[in-house]
Amino acid sequence: MRIVVTGGGGFLGQMLARALIARGGLASEPGAKTNLAELMLVDQAFPAGRVEDSRIKYASGDVGDATLLERVFAPKTDAVFHLAAVVSAGAEADFGLGYRVNLDAARFTFEACRRQPAPPRLVFTSSVAAFGGDLPAVVDDTTAATPQSSYGAQKVIGEVLVNDYTRKGYLDGRAVRLPTIVVRPGKPNRAASGFMSGILREPLNGEAALCPVPAAAKMWILSPERAVDALIRAIELPAEAWGWNRTLNAPGVTVSVAEALAALVKLAGEETAARVRFERDPAIEKIVLGWPAHFTTGRADRLGFKGDAGIEEIICAHMRTLKR
Amino acid sequence: MRIVVTGGGGFLGQMLARALIARGGLASEPGAKTNLAELMLVDQAFPAGRVEDSRIKYASGDVGDATLLERVFAPKTDAVFHLAAVVSAGAEADFGLGYRVNLDAARFTFEACRRQPAPPRLVFTSSVAAFGGDLPAVVDDTTAATPQSSYGAQKVIGEVLVNDYTRKGYLDGRAVRLPTIVVRPGKPNRAASGFMSGILREPLNGEAALCPVPAAAKMWILSPERAVDALIRAIELPAEAWGWNRTLNAPGVTVSVAEALAALVKLAGEETAARVRFERDPAIEKIVLGWPAHFTTGRADRLGFKGDAGIEEIICAHMRTLKR
Repeated sequence: MRIVVTGGGGFLGQMLARALIARGGLASEPGAKTNLAELMLVDQAFPAGRVEDSRIKYASGDVGDATLLERVFAPKTDAVFHLAAVVSAGAEADFGLGYRVNLDAARFTFEACRRQPAPPRLVFTSSVAAFGGDLPAVVDDTTAATPQSSYGAQKVIGEVLVNDYTRKGYLDGRAVRLPTIVVRPGKPNRAASGFMSGILREPLNGEAALCPVPAAAKMWILSPERAVDALIRAIELPAEAWGWNRTLNAPGVTVSVAEALAALVKLAGEETAARVRFERDPAIEKIVLGWPAHFTTGRADRLGFKGDAGIEEIICAHMRTLKR
Repeated sequence: MRIVVTGGGGFLGQMLARALIARGGLASEPGAKTNLAELMLVDQAFPAGRVEDSRIKYASGDVGDATLLERVFAPKTDAVFHLAAVVSAGAEADFGLGYRVNLDAARFTFEACRRQPAPPRLVFTSSVAAFGGDLPAVVDDTTAATPQSSYGAQKVIGEVLVNDYTRKGYLDGRAVRLPTIVVRPGKPNRAASGFMSGILREPLNGEAALCPVPAAAKMWILSPERAVDALIRAIELPAEAWGWNRTLNAPGVTVSVAEALAALVKLAGEETAARVRFERDPAIEKIVLGWPAHFTTGRADRLGFKGDAGIEEIICAHMRTLKR
C-alpha cells in the first residue's frame, strides 16, 4: 500500500506519519492486517527532527502545483490524507491565498485521485468552522453547514467536492469535521482557536500566555492523539459503513476556558495557571465564538469514533509528551 | 443603473430582460422607483427574436473567459443576475464542463464583482438539486444541503461562495433555490427535470411527449413568470432583509405527473393529454426523484416571495403565451 499525506510537514501530518509507521500502514477495515510499502509526505517545508523511516519519502513543494501532485501520486496511490490547509485566521486575512490552498489545491488533489488507476481512499480534514451564525443549542448530524469564515466556507466546499467525487466513483472520500485540536504542540500558528492550546502549553513550558476570549467561552475540542485516531478510523472504515454521506462530525468534548484553567491549576499548580493573562481580541472572538461548542455525534459514535474523556485527560496526555 | 445578466440568451435570461425593460430596471427596494441605464446580456449565443431595446447590449462569449467578464462589467456594474449554467443532466454527463461553467465561471463572476468600485447586488440561481439522499418528509429553511448530482453540488458550492463573498463585503449576494421551472418554453434541453414541461408543452403544441418517470412522481415546481418575479424580488430586497444567510428556498407548489396530466385533460381535452406516453428512463429517474417535492418556505413567504396557486394556473399562463 502506498499512502500520500498532504500537509505532511505540519504537526498533525507528522503525528499521523509516526502513527502510520508504528502500526505498519493501514488496513482495509479497522482491526484487519495493515500494509505499508511507501508513505509519501508532501509539504512546503518540514520540521527539524522530522519522522524518518525507510518507507517514508518527503516531497517539498506547493500542493497547488499540478506537476508536483502528478509526481507524488505516481505510479499508484491507495490512500490519501489531505491535511494541507491555510488555517482560519490566515484564510481570513488573505482571501486569495485561502481559496488557492483550501479550495484549488484540494481540487487538484481530488483530480490527481481521479487520474489514478483505481479510486484511492481519501480523508479530507474539515472543521467545526463549517458551522456558525444562528445555530441550534446542540449541533447534530443533520445540522446544516453555515460557515461564517472563509476557512469554514472553503472546508464546506471541500466536503461537497468529496461527496461528489465519491458519488462519481473518482475517489472513495471521507470528510471529517474535527473539533479544535488541544493541546496542539509546538509554536502558536494562525489558527484563530490556537489560544486554547496556548493557555495550557505555554504555562506548562514556564511561559506566559494571552487568552483573547472571556473565561466563560466554551469550545468543542479533541486531543491530537484522538484526532489522529479519527483520521485513521475514517480511512479504514469500509465504504459501506459510510454510505452516500461522506461528511461526519467527529466526537469531542465541550470545555470552557475557565474549566481548562481549573484543570491546569489541579494538575500543575496555581503558579502555572497564573501565567495566563486575559486580553480580549475582537477578531479572534468573532471567529471562534461563532463556532458551536455543543454537539451530539450519534453517527460518529456508531461508527466507533472516540473523543476524550475530558480536559484533565487531555492535559495529562500533553504532559506525558513533555516528559519523553 | 447598469445591470449584467449572465446566461442572458437562455429562456429565463430573455424573460428576465423583457421584465426589466418593461419595469424600467430595478429599485433599491420592492416598490421604490426603478432606474435603468444599460442592460448587458452575456451568453454564448442568443436566440432569433431576442429582446431588443435601446438600453440592451449583447455580449457573445464564454462567461468563463476573464477578459470578456472584465469588458462586460466595465466601467461600473450595479446589479448582476448570474444565470449562466450547465443544466443537471449536462453536468452529470460531462463532469469537467459542469465544474468549469457552474463553479469556475461563477467564481470568475464573483471576482469581477469584487473588482467593482462598489459591491454590486448579485442574484445566483440555485436549485432544489441542492437537496437529495435521506431527506425529511418536508424540507424547510433549516434542512442541510445534500446534493446527489454534480449540478446540485456545484449549486451548493456557489451558495457557499455567495455567502462568503457577501460576508467579506465583495458583493451583496442572494442565492435563490428555484423549484423546477414549468412550463419551460421552447425546445427540450438537458435539464433532467425537463420532461415535466415537455409533457405539457408538446401536447399543447400538437406533438407527442415522453414521460420518463411514473405518474405518481411528484415535483416541486414554479412557473417561469413567478421565477422571474422571484429573481427580481431577491435583488430588490435590501441587504438587511436578508441578514447573514444569503441562501433561500423559493416557494413553489407540489405537483405529481398524474395531477399535471389531469389538469391538461381538464384544460385542453383528453386527446391532448393522450399525446403523452410513459417510458421510464432510470438515469432521469435517479436524478429527479432524488429531489424533494415537499417544502415549507416560511422565510421566503415572510420576505414576500410568491409561488403559483396550482398546476392549472401554471398551464393557463402557458396557454396564454401561446395565443400571443
